[in-house]
Amino acid sequence: MYGINPTKAVIRLRKASVKNLIVLDTKFNSRIKAIISEAESHQIKISYEGKNYFKEHFESLNHQGIAILCEKRQEEEESLLEELLNKQDLLLLILDHLTDPHNVGACMRSAAAANADAVIVPKNRACHLNPTARKVSSGGSELIPFIIVTNLARVLEKIRSKGVEVVGADPIAKENYSDVNFSTKVAFVIGSEEKGLKRLTSQKCDKLVKIDMPGRMESLNASVSAGILLFEYLRQIKNNIQ
Amino acid sequence: MYGINPTKAVIRLRKASVKNLIVLDTKFNSRIKAIISEAESHQIKISYEGKNYFKEHFESLNHQGIAILCEKRQEEEESLLEELLNKQDLLLLILDHLTDPHNVGACMRSAAAANADAVIVPKNRACHLNPTARKVSSGGSELIPFIIVTNLARVLEKIRSKGVEVVGADPIAKENYSDVNFSTKVAFVIGSEEKGLKRLTSQKCDKLVKIDMPGRMESLNASVSAGILLFEYLRQIKNNIQ
Repeated sequence: MYGINPTKAVIRLRKASVKNLIVLDTKFNSRIKAIISEAESHQIKISYEGKNYFKEHFESLNHQGIAILCEKRQEEEESLLEELLNKQDLLLLILDHLTDPHNVGACMRSAAAANADAVIVPKNRACHLNPTARKVSSGGSELIPFIIVTNLARVLEKIRSKGVEVVGADPIAKENYSDVNFSTKVAFVIGSEEKGLKRLTSQKCDKLVKIDMPGRMESLNASVSAGILLFEYLRQIKNNIQ
Repeated sequence: MYGINPTKAVIRLRKASVKNLIVLDTKFNSRIKAIISEAESHQIKISYEGKNYFKEHFESLNHQGIAILCEKRQEEEESLLEELLNKQDLLLLILDHLTDPHNVGACMRSAAAANADAVIVPKNRACHLNPTARKVSSGGSELIPFIIVTNLARVLEKIRSKGVEVVGADPIAKENYSDVNFSTKVAFVIGSEEKGLKRLTSQKCDKLVKIDMPGRMESLNASVSAGILLFEYLRQIKNNIQ
């Protein structure tokens, strides 16, 4: 893992998994100094390395002069979902075979920011938490569960059977997202970059919503769509409480 | 330029700039066939190349088996802004020194989808329309002006003097974005990935808004923030008309 925010998040939230903090010996800004003192307070081993070390290990990646060696974050298993489904309020983000780690990382960041209960992805033909996705998530990947499920259609059925409203984002839907009152237990389903929602996935949704676009584009970036839906949900919750 | 959506957009919108359509000779799905016939109808030269050609020219990029050789899209100059500022309704997206082409591309896509009048970026230390940004914009880069300005602070002053409300996105703002009624002439300003809004930029804004986040994240991805603000503007416009 590399970069300031991801490094900070892992040290703060999963310190037991950190084996070594690696700092570029010519780059000491105040944010990096703060991470070094936090690492020291947890007795984490700190190594100082030169530019060549970073060049060799991170090539053109934006490492910001800081990295950690840590145990791979385990993605969560389907059994965790059973527990979550008994919660009174629930916000889930389901990614239907997204393959771009930039999108998966940005979705994870938005879901963590929105305090979603989990992000759910299928086991096959989908991007999981690889290093790019974790970096792009800016620490979000360390904050909320990332659940990998074997059969997405069956999981959608199970989620619905527990009273969660499953809302798929689909440009050809009839209803616009902001005209819908979302349930307090909701799962948003975002389709893949290339093909949108799979047919079987959209059949398993309670409802489909589109994001009305006055411009001449056919669709938005998957992580932007996810962000718009998650924050519209929060806006509605807030307005209903007031 | 490469990829299905960007290729399609350039042929549709800037056909005069296209010199050559290049198609992978083993990959002919229905979307690629549709682009080939559109290119044929405009007398665009079509070449069929093998896998090695694509590997050599696009390496690991997701070219989807299709590319075009075209004149570089010219970014627009500041003089265009003068004309735009006389419009009755105006929606501008201003990127304050964003450096990640994925973010710039996704912002361009969202701005085009929202039918924004232009995206504005500073001349120096900022990502412009490079091939990655154009590809990520999924054709959006061909649809709306991308205006490069020399002095962003002075441009913000000019925009305000023409009655446009300049709204900066800042996590430490007091007001939440969805509690603000936006003017019909509005410019949203998004800060850079690393540092957010520059101090001088935020001083030039009429108001600053935050995007309330119940989760433990400090901020959202820049393109997600831009998408949330642009589509909240559209939601308000729509609700005010109804």
